[in-house]
Amino acid sequence: MKKVLKDFKAGKVDLKEVLERIRSLPYKDLDFAKIDNHRAIRKGFPETVFCGGKTVLQIIKIIEEMSKKNHNILATKADGRIFTAVKKIYPNAEYNEPAKTIVIRKEKQKTKKGKILVITAGTSDIPVAEEAVVTAEIMGNKVEKVYDVGVAGVHRLFDIKDKIFDANVIIVVAGMEGALASIVGGLASRPVIAVPTSVGYGASFKGIAPLLTMMNSCAEGVVVVNIDNGFGAGYFASLINR
Amino acid sequence: MKKVLKDFKAGKVDLKEVLERIRSLPYKDLDFAKIDNHRAIRKGFPETVFCGGKTVLQIIKIIEEMSKKNHNILATKADGRIFTAVKKIYPNAEYNEPAKTIVIRKEKQKTKKGKILVITAGTSDIPVAEEAVVTAEIMGNKVEKVYDVGVAGVHRLFDIKDKIFDANVIIVVAGMEGALASIVGGLASRPVIAVPTSVGYGASFKGIAPLLTMMNSCAEGVVVVNIDNGFGAGYFASLINR
Amino acid sequence: MKKVLKDFKAGKVDLKEVLERIRSLPYKDLDFAKIDNHRAIRKGFPETVFCGGKTVLQIIKIIEEMSKKNHNILATKADGRIFTAVKKIYPNAEYNEPAKTIVIRKEKQKTKKGKILVITAGTSDIPVAEEAVVTAEIMGNKVEKVYDVGVAGVHRLFDIKDKIFDANVIIVVAGMEGALASIVGGLASRPVIAVPTSVGYGASFKGIAPLLTMMNSCAEGVVVVNIDNGFGAGYFASLINR
Amino acid sequence: MKKVLKDFKAGKVDLKEVLERIRSLPYKDLDFAKIDNHRAIRKGFPETVFCGGKTVLQIIKIIEEMSKKNHNILATKADGRIFTAVKKIYPNAEYNEPAKTIVIRKEKQKTKKGKILVITAGTSDIPVAEEAVVTAEIMGNKVEKVYDVGVAGVHRLFDIKDKIFDANVIIVVAGMEGALASIVGGLASRPVIAVPTSVGYGASFKGIAPLLTMMNSCAEGVVVVNIDNGFGAGYFASLINR
Amino acid sequence: MKKVLKDFKAGKVDLKEVLERIRSLPYKDLDFAKIDNHRAIRKGFPETVFCGGKTVLQIIKIIEEMSKKNHNILATKADGRIFTAVKKIYPNAEYNEPAKTIVIRKEKQKTKKGKILVITAGTSDIPVAEEAVVTAEIMGNKVEKVYDVGVAGVHRLFDIKDKIFDANVIIVVAGMEGALASIVGGLASRPVIAVPTSVGYGASFKGIAPLLTMMNSCAEGVVVVNIDNGFGAGYFASLINR
Amino acid sequence: MKKVLKDFKAGKVDLKEVLERIRSLPYKDLDFAKIDNHRAIRKGFPETVFCGGKTVLQIIKIIEEMSKKNHNILATKADGRIFTAVKKIYPNAEYNEPAKTIVIRKEKQKTKKGKILVITAGTSDIPVAEEAVVTAEIMGNKVEKVYDVGVAGVHRLFDIKDKIFDANVIIVVAGMEGALASIVGGLASRPVIAVPTSVGYGASFKGIAPLLTMMNSCAEGVVVVNIDNGFGAGYFASLINR
Amino acid sequence: MKKVLKDFKAGKVDLKEVLERIRSLPYKDLDFAKIDNHRAIRKGFPETVFCGGKTVLQIIKIIEEMSKKNHNILATKADGRIFTAVKKIYPNAEYNEPAKTIVIRKEKQKTKKGKILVITAGTSDIPVAEEAVVTAEIMGNKVEKVYDVGVAGVHRLFDIKDKIFDANVIIVVAGMEGALASIVGGLASRPVIAVPTSVGYGASFKGIAPLLTMMNSCAEGVVVVNIDNGFGAGYFASLINR
Amino acid sequence: MKKVLKDFKAGKVDLKEVLERIRSLPYKDLDFAKIDNHRAIRKGFPETVFCGGKTVLQIIKIIEEMSKKNHNILATKADGRIFTAVKKIYPNAEYNEPAKTIVIRKEKQKTKKGKILVITAGTSDIPVAEEAVVTAEIMGNKVEKVYDVGVAGVHRLFDIKDKIFDANVIIVVAGMEGALASIVGGLASRPVIAVPTSVGYGASFKGIAPLLTMMNSCAEGVVVVNIDNGFGAGYFASLINR
Repeated sequence: MKKVLKDFKAGKVDLKEVLERIRSLPYKDLDFAKIDNHRAIRKGFPETVFCGGKTVLQIIKIIEEMSKKNHNILATKADGRIFTAVKKIYPNAEYNEPAKTIVIRKEKQKTKKGKILVITAGTSDIPVAEEAVVTAEIMGNKVEKVYDVGVAGVHRLFDIKDKIFDANVIIVVAGMEGALASIVGGLASRPVIAVPTSVGYGASFKGIAPLLTMMNSCAEGVVVVNIDNGFGAGYFASLINR
Repeated sequence: MKKVLKDFKAGKVDLKEVLERIRSLPYKDLDFAKIDNHRAIRKGFPETVFCGGKTVLQIIKIIEEMSKKNHNILATKADGRIFTAVKKIYPNAEYNEPAKTIVIRKEKQKTKKGKILVITAGTSDIPVAEEAVVTAEIMGNKVEKVYDVGVAGVHRLFDIKDKIFDANVIIVVAGMEGALASIVGGLASRPVIAVPTSVGYGASFKGIAPLLTMMNSCAEGVVVVNIDNGFGAGYFASLINR
Repeated sequence: MKKVLKDFKAGKVDLKEVLERIRSLPYKDLDFAKIDNHRAIRKGFPETVFCGGKTVLQIIKIIEEMSKKNHNILATKADGRIFTAVKKIYPNAEYNEPAKTIVIRKEKQKTKKGKILVITAGTSDIPVAEEAVVTAEIMGNKVEKVYDVGVAGVHRLFDIKDKIFDANVIIVVAGMEGALASIVGGLASRPVIAVPTSVGYGASFKGIAPLLTMMNSCAEGVVVVNIDNGFGAGYFASLINR
Repeated sequence: MKKVLKDFKAGKVDLKEVLERIRSLPYKDLDFAKIDNHRAIRKGFPETVFCGGKTVLQIIKIIEEMSKKNHNILATKADGRIFTAVKKIYPNAEYNEPAKTIVIRKEKQKTKKGKILVITAGTSDIPVAEEAVVTAEIMGNKVEKVYDVGVAGVHRLFDIKDKIFDANVIIVVAGMEGALASIVGGLASRPVIAVPTSVGYGASFKGIAPLLTMMNSCAEGVVVVNIDNGFGAGYFASLINR
Repeated sequence: MKKVLKDFKAGKVDLKEVLERIRSLPYKDLDFAKIDNHRAIRKGFPETVFCGGKTVLQIIKIIEEMSKKNHNILATKADGRIFTAVKKIYPNAEYNEPAKTIVIRKEKQKTKKGKILVITAGTSDIPVAEEAVVTAEIMGNKVEKVYDVGVAGVHRLFDIKDKIFDANVIIVVAGMEGALASIVGGLASRPVIAVPTSVGYGASFKGIAPLLTMMNSCAEGVVVVNIDNGFGAGYFASLINR
Repeated sequence: MKKVLKDFKAGKVDLKEVLERIRSLPYKDLDFAKIDNHRAIRKGFPETVFCGGKTVLQIIKIIEEMSKKNHNILATKADGRIFTAVKKIYPNAEYNEPAKTIVIRKEKQKTKKGKILVITAGTSDIPVAEEAVVTAEIMGNKVEKVYDVGVAGVHRLFDIKDKIFDANVIIVVAGMEGALASIVGGLASRPVIAVPTSVGYGASFKGIAPLLTMMNSCAEGVVVVNIDNGFGAGYFASLINR
Repeated sequence: MKKVLKDFKAGKVDLKEVLERIRSLPYKDLDFAKIDNHRAIRKGFPETVFCGGKTVLQIIKIIEEMSKKNHNILATKADGRIFTAVKKIYPNAEYNEPAKTIVIRKEKQKTKKGKILVITAGTSDIPVAEEAVVTAEIMGNKVEKVYDVGVAGVHRLFDIKDKIFDANVIIVVAGMEGALASIVGGLASRPVIAVPTSVGYGASFKGIAPLLTMMNSCAEGVVVVNIDNGFGAGYFASLINR
Repeated sequence: MKKVLKDFKAGKVDLKEVLERIRSLPYKDLDFAKIDNHRAIRKGFPETVFCGGKTVLQIIKIIEEMSKKNHNILATKADGRIFTAVKKIYPNAEYNEPAKTIVIRKEKQKTKKGKILVITAGTSDIPVAEEAVVTAEIMGNKVEKVYDVGVAGVHRLFDIKDKIFDANVIIVVAGMEGALASIVGGLASRPVIAVPTSVGYGASFKGIAPLLTMMNSCAEGVVVVNIDNGFGAGYFASLINR
């Protein structure tokens, strides 16, 4: 920005152009959506397409715009119908069915040294966990996963103690009562990202019960993302992984 | 009841008396309160005085009525002011300050064989736990207590594994996120009674967070009583202890 | 555990094997699920398959793993499609349609002396009650059931007074306002397990109304499990039945 | 109204006066409050002063304005400080301390034939019940009251069966879980007005639990008023009593 | 009851028979449902079949049992599929499609003198209102209905002022914000029964918004029934209509 | 009104007619709906048909009645099926598919001077925004729209700063966390109408999260309408636009 | 801004100064608070001091900073203790006790033509209404107020019909059930700003009930501000008043 | 652990001692509290004393036990009364009054390279922010703080853009609507920890509004801790700072 201002002072660019350039840089306007090209620079990653509430046509157009740059693309909450449409145009698009993610690889990320460990309390939490896994991997992280660790059988958890101590960041995905986050948080010396899921029935209220459990965790070093937000957890884990 | 009916048929009692007797048996009417003498027979325990929302005068009158029978008396949620008033009339009344319970002993309960273990997650959960302890003891149970077991430091819990295996019934008292109940439930082979407490801040919402956690516990063999209801937990534990 | 340590000291097993053995004992890892064989020893019952949120393939694989041991198997929240798949492989699998449970019997449980009484407030609460009945029976309990006892017509309840006095444990299943639990709790001298159901409309809020009613029950000796959690009630009842 | 229009046509009053008279008729404007004198005609009762959130001065002024007519006056939610101030000016003002009501009698109501029965579940519900009693009595009803009927001891309820059958309208006041309304509703053949109270602790949530219980009552013939709204129940009971 | 006891004393009936008779009187046990024949006597109306959550077969069996007595039958929340099944067996069954009610007339009710007025705020509230209308009519009441009165156009309300003054009981059915109940309550001198409906969108939360509005109505003489509970309103209105 | 009264005095109309005329003036009664013709005069716009919860037949009849006057007609929450039916009768009916609105133009509105700016946070908020746009345009406003402005990329917002300063009224439509309203409110010097949408997942709770955000906006000059209520926002914006 | 850039280009200011000037312009940093001087230009009004949660010292310092400019100052939610401290330094400070507002006048606002009408449902809503009145007046508006209009007595409302038609903007302040906003909205042809208040008891839940009522208002032209936010209503009303 | 096992095998320690040693290692049991000395090793920090719900005596005893090791001690939610008691025994104890924290320094932490930036939305959020600052500093972090950044005046935020880009971790503390977290999240390329505060009034519901806002943040890289949990945010920030 300072450079632009200096150029401007040096007479290399005029006032109108200064304003223009600032404006045109960061994103591309598709009328119904604005593609934030700047983000790849700012955050080391292009804007993700959240497919919920968008038409297939809108999604395709957004991906087409994104493809002009050479960044990896990640689409979340994408059902099979969307993947079929994307696959036709981008044959190398990869689909993770439980995670409902589409990945189009355009560049090779340098792999980070630290490992991210993704743990689920139950089998039903796997889809949300997989969204976190896909996100973390496309951002250049080594990911290890251990599913159905439970709380009811705490001894299962102790078998993975070494993995907990090895990991640089830990993501805990749990529905029902979500107690797993507190216990892992108590064992771990590294940051824990808790993801409540809408798995459960009765008084779990579509994820409110595990969300509250996790918010109130008496273990330090535990933070929380939105219900079912595997993407957010994977993204944040990547941000703090070295 | 059949006996009364047979006496009635045999002409030993008249119709009016039959109805009268049925009526007079089970309780004593104090106008503002009805003392349920029958309960001591039905449940092995006199009706407890829940002091919340009652005037000191009402409480004294209720205890006076209860004292005519030879059963132990338990008053819960009794502040110091109430105890002072009761103590004047019943010098042998005992006060447990954190628990806010008054006990007046009139008979010796036979001690049961099984042991009830009362565990708290934190130091602040102790008052509710003590209410459970007092209740269980007055009902003739051996009670062992372990406080501030936490979840954040799971290794603390493992030190009391033997106590968990020894106990016949376990009461888990926890505020904040209430995850302790699930973990104990996963370890124990005996029934667990979970008591959410209103301890905590922020999104614990005066006990809603641990209540939901406990309701959704994925460990079998866990049931829940009302927030801060130490009495209910101690009572139920006594019912199922042998 | 002490035995293993002694063997280790005696040189019968080496350090690595000690750690290994501890680890391999308690469960079998299916990658997406961990089968807790240990539980049958710990609790007298194999881990139940909660079918909600699992694929048919996952359920089949879990049951296959479980079948290697000689314990009874119980699958809950299993729809007809799941039963059809299971039946093909385990022809002796039994289906309880309203309860949505599958049972595969592999061993004969010794029948306990005490009787468990299962009561529903309405006709619509029967499916949840049946889940409790199936669970309690497979765990070796005599179960008696009385459905549609209501509260609106209290005289119905009084006709089953004898059954209430006979039972060793009572399960009350009720939706709408859930008042039945309090009334049965007031009559009974034995423990009452209350199961709120999501039956009702308007301000019953999918089971919140009866859940709150039951949590606040002014009758002692009443505990609560999660909304629609018939399994949990049957399991707990079995734990405390003699 | 028709009379005014006819007078107007007959030239006895002019257009401005017609509009004026309509306006001046129904109430007296105190600037900060409007006294609805019309109500005594419309409903057989003057507007009640709800003292919550009003200054003592405002309350005195409202009562002074009301006193110009010859109707009885009822002030609700009036603490001792307010009564002291009112008493100075209206020496015949009567205070019901638990109910927190002030009554100033100016006319004798004709007593209605039917009886209103007011029942409470516990001792702590008495203040709300008394508000209902005072309201119903000042409106000319015979009121019978039975307090602390409970639900935990259903036999207590059966002792008052005759009173339930005798009453023309029944008011049930209950906190905690509020189940009493359903049971009385099931027994009674006359209308039942349920008043949830904020008595209780833990998950009773200041009256939400009994409110939901009562809303979902499976007994027909039960309607609900606001939490702690003894006045509303007494008023409605009087409206439907004959 | 006294009669039975006297007969028993006179030796006309033996002890077993006394108990038997009491039992057999009030209802018929269908195993999955208990038909409360007594109610027709107690309340002047047979038990209504609430069809929600019941199978068609269960409903048919309940109606068959009810048909043995000579009372009118009312089924609520009955979809078209249920009516088709009922119609085959009871050709005189009448269906009110918006109300989802089935009526089978077996006796002629004496018509009461007072009129019940049913008002809706909007067009979408009509189904709930019709349930109230059907209920009130089968119980022998004259019913007048005015739909879509609204609040936004208060002048519409004033056109029906005469109807409001004429009616003996008024039922107000409203979703959205439910303000109509307060306004009608302010105009009327007769009791108003408010029925919140789940009509609306956004922050009406399936009827919670109008429910709260009605609970907090500052107009005296307004009581509330459950969300969408047209039947309850019609039933209660009939109870208090003369 | 004064005129009618004068005519009445002059003997031109009789008493009955006076009352009659007052009544017949403002609306047309369709039995299931009351068409408020008066509104076009009062508010410069005919009553809108809210199609939710109405049958196609009812909607057609309402539109037919409205068509007798010469005002524009707007139907909201109209699905394709409804439009097909309306189109057959009113070939000039226009459909906005995402907005689910039908417009039938009968008169030309004078265009106002001020501009209304409609901004959405995301692509998924467009349907609600379009409802606001259609409403504002049919009421004679110039509308400018900018979609997918986001909050995550605040620089996008700064590109539209000039549009924000140009607009006379601003409508902000946002789901998820709804923060956009506060930011626009902080930038703008003109009134901002915030519309929370039910777009989002997890803890957005169908619009509660953005609703609360907007209610608590610390920026002055921000008011809120109901969740997804694009119509209400467009209507209010038109009211205050000059 | 363009001017600064041009000066910069012309060499009149250097780069550092450009950045400095931008920074220093809009507000003054007090370390614990930032005074937004720019606002008086942007919105025609200085930033208001919201006293909630601030120490007296902080408030004084903020006011001192603000006083350097010649704009009027408004402090809201200021208790008597705060006013005493402010009065010592600014003797012309005016206090509105029910509203808890402090006003320090420094300039004379030009009075706008349109009138703002402030209506309350009850006497207890007056403090919130007064906050709106003070805010609107200091911003140069003519304000008319009518308090305790109620809903229970709708005829009171009709007496102020002319005032409703005269006003350019209407503010409706109501607690309890908040229905007044809908009714005024239905009568008025000008915009209505609804302010829910925390006045009420029981199920009004500190303002949630009237908030929901107002959000769901079926009257067009009604928008809502936060509970008890009289300031917000007065501010917005002033923005749209001409 | 392996060492202990080897010693055991080598006969250096007996079986009882093995079990004993494992037990005695990680914490010191105070009966009412367990001091987790192990934590300083595991997490680089001793267990913090959360003073809420603990007596002064308990707190003193806990600190005394902790003091035996040479780690820094942090007490949170400590009111002045607690500090006075602690100060007497530990004269070097430091008190941060708004933060309500006590710090006793025993060792010098190595300062980390990265900077933690703590931002508040308003002046009233400062106490929670200070708790985060104290926590982060005692854990060896450089902390920069900017308070009262607001959202209403977004230009204030842009002045601190450089600080946002400089920081390695950012903590955003905000009450009211909590929108600041999203905006900072959108600007920053480093992780953002959002802390909702209970500051606000009306519909902010003691922190629920900002909590939901932050949970639903559409900006990636934002995680949330409990309401008012400044400590948790500071702790987590330190964990991920380098």
